[in-house]
Amino acid sequence: MTDQRQHIFECQIEVRDYELDAEGIVNNANYLHYFEHTRHCFCKSEGFSFADMRKQGLDPVLAKITVNYRIPLVSGDVVTSRLAMRRKGPRFIFDQWLINEKGELVAEGEITVVTLKNGQLSRGDELAAPFEKYLK
Amino acid sequence: MTDQRQHIFECQIEVRDYELDAEGIVNNANYLHYFEHTRHCFCKSEGFSFADMRKQGLDPVLAKITVNYRIPLVSGDVVTSRLAMRRKGPRFIFDQWLINEKGELVAEGEITVVTLKNGQLSRGDELAAPFEKYLK
Amino acid sequence: MTDQRQHIFECQIEVRDYELDAEGIVNNANYLHYFEHTRHCFCKSEGFSFADMRKQGLDPVLAKITVNYRIPLVSGDVVTSRLAMRRKGPRFIFDQWLINEKGELVAEGEITVVTLKNGQLSRGDELAAPFEKYLK
Amino acid sequence: MTDQRQHIFECQIEVRDYELDAEGIVNNANYLHYFEHTRHCFCKSEGFSFADMRKQGLDPVLAKITVNYRIPLVSGDVVTSRLAMRRKGPRFIFDQWLINEKGELVAEGEITVVTLKNGQLSRGDELAAPFEKYLK
Repeated sequence: MTDQRQHIFECQIEVRDYELDAEGIVNNANYLHYFEHTRHCFCKSEGFSFADMRKQGLDPVLAKITVNYRIPLVSGDVVTSRLAMRRKGPRFIFDQWLINEKGELVAEGEITVVTLKNGQLSRGDELAAPFEKYLK
Repeated sequence: MTDQRQHIFECQIEVRDYELDAEGIVNNANYLHYFEHTRHCFCKSEGFSFADMRKQGLDPVLAKITVNYRIPLVSGDVVTSRLAMRRKGPRFIFDQWLINEKGELVAEGEITVVTLKNGQLSRGDELAAPFEKYLK
Repeated sequence: MTDQRQHIFECQIEVRDYELDAEGIVNNANYLHYFEHTRHCFCKSEGFSFADMRKQGLDPVLAKITVNYRIPLVSGDVVTSRLAMRRKGPRFIFDQWLINEKGELVAEGEITVVTLKNGQLSRGDELAAPFEKYLK
Repeated sequence: MTDQRQHIFECQIEVRDYELDAEGIVNNANYLHYFEHTRHCFCKSEGFSFADMRKQGLDPVLAKITVNYRIPLVSGDVVTSRLAMRRKGPRFIFDQWLINEKGELVAEGEITVVTLKNGQLSRGDELAAPFEKYLK
């Protein structure tokens, strides 16, 4: 995993109360929503939104995720969501971190994405092009 | 609203624990999921699934909903979800009920749907055709 | 319904791509999430968050909702979410509006909330107290 | 990971259309919902539901997940969700598989759960007791 200090993007995400479950903490699946939303904000900030990708027949899909849950998120929390990006052939790997307001690491994820081009697994070059500067 | 005894379809829906919120009851938005899932099961049982509709360029979209919440749903509940259907010109109105295992009315909804045909508001005749017998 | 110009609170909500369904528009249930999140932000801004309410044994629960869906929300949309508040005995009625970036009304909701105090229906006075100035 | 043939529980899960996202496939976060729902059904079938756990002050929380996504799930799919269980000290590890109607492996997950007892990390013995026969 990349060192967190080498993140290339960050945004703020506020916990919404409907994301809590009966234990009073954010349900585990919502962390994937936070991670996904962060990736989409990153792509949009680079001028290549998911809506743009679909118009080109490109569908990024998840191949694998690993998430370490460290500190439960509760009502009122606001996290800083950070992201770094790597490429291994057709696979794009996003290292992602959620940091709470005390600066503590709440969760970290390693998310592997591949790209379908008109339904077929792509080599990934079209997705890589706009992000070239991050993928040396 | 139609009399509940005149429902034309029913299915069972089991509360899933992730649908509870921090109050320990099913979050209000999930009732719309239950209602939607019931409508989709009904359409599928009539041989005209939402996937089929999309293939024909038909997109049913919600115009209006009214929901009365009567008894909170909790972990372990299983509801019988019932549905009736009416038409008012381009609008299709679904009367829907959720009944718990004691036979009590948990919630009732009146959901108004219109149809887009290639993005334009449709008169609804294509959607009506497969359901004609229910729409006299 | 209250005149929208008399709203007492507003916040911004950004559509997240995972809230879209297969039609490419925000799923109907997520509007209830937006409305709920807005009410919670409003209560928090008044110094009486839902976490605070629960600590006092107060559980606000929905009794009824009516939503008019006017314009589908799509990827990239940001809405201004506005709220007004009325009281009818034990019932608190929230009039809510979602406005898109062109100033168009996307959806409006009338949401009726009652309060449980230690599991029993409450007269609502404890919930009303912090909001008195809005409930003349 | 345990051999899939050694699963100790299985249930059927039907894809609901609201779980699809704009790509027309089940959103990645919903796989965690499917896995969680399966674990809860398993515990309930063993006579020790999550509601029971909470009454005893026990809160199982996720420590880590790894999911391999192999075949996208689409509208109409029904999966068989299988589960095996292991213990490593305070950690309970669930190996989980989703199998489609053709018998293909759709996704597999390794989910690590720890238990909080009145808010403190527990050694796990209370959670282990009802599942002893699976944890030799």
